[in-house]
Amino acid sequence: MQFEYGQLIIIKDCKGKSYLQKLMKNGRFQTHLGLITHDQIVGKKEGETLVTSTGEEVTVFYPTLNEFIQKMGRRTAIIQPKDIAFIIMGVDLKPGDKVLEAGTGSGALLLALSRYVGKEGRVYSYDNRPELQEIAIKNLTKFYEKIPDNVILKQKDITTGIEEKNLDAVILDFSEPWSAIPEIINALRPGGKLASYLPTIIQVERLVKELQRTDNFIDIHSCELLLRPWQIKGFSVRPLHKIIGHTGFLVFARLKGGKNNV
Amino acid sequence: MQFEYGQLIIIKDCKGKSYLQKLMKNGRFQTHLGLITHDQIVGKKEGETLVTSTGEEVTVFYPTLNEFIQKMGRRTAIIQPKDIAFIIMGVDLKPGDKVLEAGTGSGALLLALSRYVGKEGRVYSYDNRPELQEIAIKNLTKFYEKIPDNVILKQKDITTGIEEKNLDAVILDFSEPWSAIPEIINALRPGGKLASYLPTIIQVERLVKELQRTDNFIDIHSCELLLRPWQIKGFSVRPLHKIIGHTGFLVFARLKGGKNNV
Amino acid sequence: MQFEYGQLIIIKDCKGKSYLQKLMKNGRFQTHLGLITHDQIVGKKEGETLVTSTGEEVTVFYPTLNEFIQKMGRRTAIIQPKDIAFIIMGVDLKPGDKVLEAGTGSGALLLALSRYVGKEGRVYSYDNRPELQEIAIKNLTKFYEKIPDNVILKQKDITTGIEEKNLDAVILDFSEPWSAIPEIINALRPGGKLASYLPTIIQVERLVKELQRTDNFIDIHSCELLLRPWQIKGFSVRPLHKIIGHTGFLVFARLKGGKNNV
Amino acid sequence: MQFEYGQLIIIKDCKGKSYLQKLMKNGRFQTHLGLITHDQIVGKKEGETLVTSTGEEVTVFYPTLNEFIQKMGRRTAIIQPKDIAFIIMGVDLKPGDKVLEAGTGSGALLLALSRYVGKEGRVYSYDNRPELQEIAIKNLTKFYEKIPDNVILKQKDITTGIEEKNLDAVILDFSEPWSAIPEIINALRPGGKLASYLPTIIQVERLVKELQRTDNFIDIHSCELLLRPWQIKGFSVRPLHKIIGHTGFLVFARLKGGKNNV
Repeated sequence: MQFEYGQLIIIKDCKGKSYLQKLMKNGRFQTHLGLITHDQIVGKKEGETLVTSTGEEVTVFYPTLNEFIQKMGRRTAIIQPKDIAFIIMGVDLKPGDKVLEAGTGSGALLLALSRYVGKEGRVYSYDNRPELQEIAIKNLTKFYEKIPDNVILKQKDITTGIEEKNLDAVILDFSEPWSAIPEIINALRPGGKLASYLPTIIQVERLVKELQRTDNFIDIHSCELLLRPWQIKGFSVRPLHKIIGHTGFLVFARLKGGKNNV
Repeated sequence: MQFEYGQLIIIKDCKGKSYLQKLMKNGRFQTHLGLITHDQIVGKKEGETLVTSTGEEVTVFYPTLNEFIQKMGRRTAIIQPKDIAFIIMGVDLKPGDKVLEAGTGSGALLLALSRYVGKEGRVYSYDNRPELQEIAIKNLTKFYEKIPDNVILKQKDITTGIEEKNLDAVILDFSEPWSAIPEIINALRPGGKLASYLPTIIQVERLVKELQRTDNFIDIHSCELLLRPWQIKGFSVRPLHKIIGHTGFLVFARLKGGKNNV
Repeated sequence: MQFEYGQLIIIKDCKGKSYLQKLMKNGRFQTHLGLITHDQIVGKKEGETLVTSTGEEVTVFYPTLNEFIQKMGRRTAIIQPKDIAFIIMGVDLKPGDKVLEAGTGSGALLLALSRYVGKEGRVYSYDNRPELQEIAIKNLTKFYEKIPDNVILKQKDITTGIEEKNLDAVILDFSEPWSAIPEIINALRPGGKLASYLPTIIQVERLVKELQRTDNFIDIHSCELLLRPWQIKGFSVRPLHKIIGHTGFLVFARLKGGKNNV
Repeated sequence: MQFEYGQLIIIKDCKGKSYLQKLMKNGRFQTHLGLITHDQIVGKKEGETLVTSTGEEVTVFYPTLNEFIQKMGRRTAIIQPKDIAFIIMGVDLKPGDKVLEAGTGSGALLLALSRYVGKEGRVYSYDNRPELQEIAIKNLTKFYEKIPDNVILKQKDITTGIEEKNLDAVILDFSEPWSAIPEIINALRPGGKLASYLPTIIQVERLVKELQRTDNFIDIHSCELLLRPWQIKGFSVRPLHKIIGHTGFLVFARLKGGKNNV
């Protein structure tokens, strides 16, 4: 497979920096490490090394989803890949699942959900801020070339009503998720899972206690994931000095069936 | 959808304990909290609450993959869900991918890989210990009712040769992964990803330095993930006292193309 | 210096276990690894290895304060050495300081405060639970042979009044430290430091917000310390699997001078 | 007690910044928040609030040791207060102890050791880099007004010989501490403690294994401390986003007595 005009690529230089590019006729990639034209890249294969006008080597790949998420446009803090991955396993997402997320935000989680529910799955993404959904649409379109068929965007606040029923999972990334609990109870299938990403522990406490109070959920639990990168370089084998000390807390729960009442 | 004979279920009691069961005619689930017959469960719906012979309430679900992994038979330490999830995003796994894992172990990672490459993907799982692959086969069969069509088990040590070509990812969970580097270079497609799960930092150092030495890989990086569960119970809002302080380190790398030489 | 009757020692066996003993005429130390009589130990020097009746080697030392704290009698959760040490530097404790602690608890922090304020310092330890102060007295007496001259124990709740003035530091280890803020403002010297050890984040939030509200404090900050032990044994170089995931949170603040008002 | 010329103070502004100053006749403290003259400060009491020429409030204190360490001159990475505090408790340091440190570095640990061994203790600080000891001398003199009587600086590499005997503790902060083991065995009293601060895990492994090999040490253990600051501000109750992910590892050991041989 060879690089073609219109494809999204990532160029990695010898300093460890990387750059997203959409390949275009007459496109140019210029940094202080010299120039590469898109015409030079087209026809090459993934992983090949090219030489810039100033003699520096760069390597060209298709971006991974993680790389794209780190580089994509955003207007909001995004959920980091470590948390996205853990949410996906935490709600037991599988091909064919119907999942709802609220809010859409810049689309980081949505990009991953669309991938992992597959062609037969559905992702309903609610957000009542059209300017954010615009960004998410741009990001989806940039990464997948179009809005994936399994994604349905809705400009709506889920606390005013969820139209879907029998959802396998609901994933919440907005500031007052407890206000959506009654709607979620109606929208999830029995056995369906809830996950919520929350920046502060005050939100965690409130959400967990409201979930406990309704008595409709089981396996309510909370955690956080710390990512600790290590440097392995000559004698320097140690954790990195500067790290992200906190992204968000995660809350999970599972809907019971039968006599649910709010 | 109602529970049927032959299905795998998980019964959760009021103490927070849970139990895997395969539903069988005349099957019985007996604990100190009383008896439930499988016949009572069949015909009920997921999430329903049943009452045992001694009046205790239990709730019945289909097990999530995470739950199954925690409860399944094993003869080896297994990769935990937090690490499985991070590996899957780290190697950019997507439906249709061809991925190799070595070794099979008890099958925890394999269960997840099979799910996320989907019907059109393939998972080649190498292990030269037949007694472990037996356990993995049992676990696959128990969870998926049969060995999934996208799983190919091979009784073989990958350092003696990888038969597949153009793999999207190779995931290594055995003690001397550096010994497989030449084979991996031949088996991965350019741009393909490598991940390795390693219990000790000595292994991380050795693998990373051998990967650096070959000059065939880019984006070589190492990290670990710490999972910190929180208790949210009345006034007690705090991290749990006893936690798992370490599971394993993770190493990732991506194969460059072109003039690869070992 | 030789071991003498009446001294507190710690016996360490070849399995890594250790045992506190007060040396007594005809005293006996008996475990499944055999018998050592106290008479055998008296006259030996610190660090010497002795052989039990069954031929096992043990080594005898004076206990460190850390070791004593881990082994001493208690009726309460104790502050761990990592937190004690950080509190002592956090309140800038030095020889000659006058420091108040509340409550006394089992005396772990008190043992350390007495050591580090030295002969010319003073530690006022308040607790209104006489049964706990009894345990602290036993622990002080066991470790220091008597209640140190620089320790003053008071059976009193500090929220009902602090008799001391011009204290260099106040250290709080009880559940509602905010209720003592007015008393603390009167008892600390300007520039004096406050530290509080708190099991839950709810307490941290409440204390910090009440300290912020009075406007009498500066440098109000909160943190927690995680201790991660490593195993270094042959090829196994890695963090320990089972660790303490949480002890307590720490809050620090410093009293401003001048126009203080509550 | 009032501020006097010649004293070291710390000025804290309303933005949370702080500045060390030595009070001098005609001294001036000028920032973008206005001017305060030292003459204004002299005669005031600790903790008082002063107003700058532009109407901003600042508060004046004597610096804590922690604050001084963060602000003092340095030419080396310094050991952080969390690690200093843990080392001091880890080697069971007490008033009157004789302790050796190598190397002196910029003097951060030395400042604390001098404080906690008290008047009757001794700190022997070895370093063969005179330019570093110069910085340490400046820092000691700035904080304590002179080199404390209990501090003895030696321009010497400890691997070439330790002149002291019967030391209570030896604390190592240089890159190849294993090379000093024979000298340390001779210099420590039986029961004396060793601590080493090490940036990389490779050093930890080497030191621990050499200590294990000599068979002269007991209680050899390794760990690291993570400091996690929290933000408590309105609804934002969460760990800080940017943190120091690693300072150094710590190794501790205790010398056995009797038949020591290297």
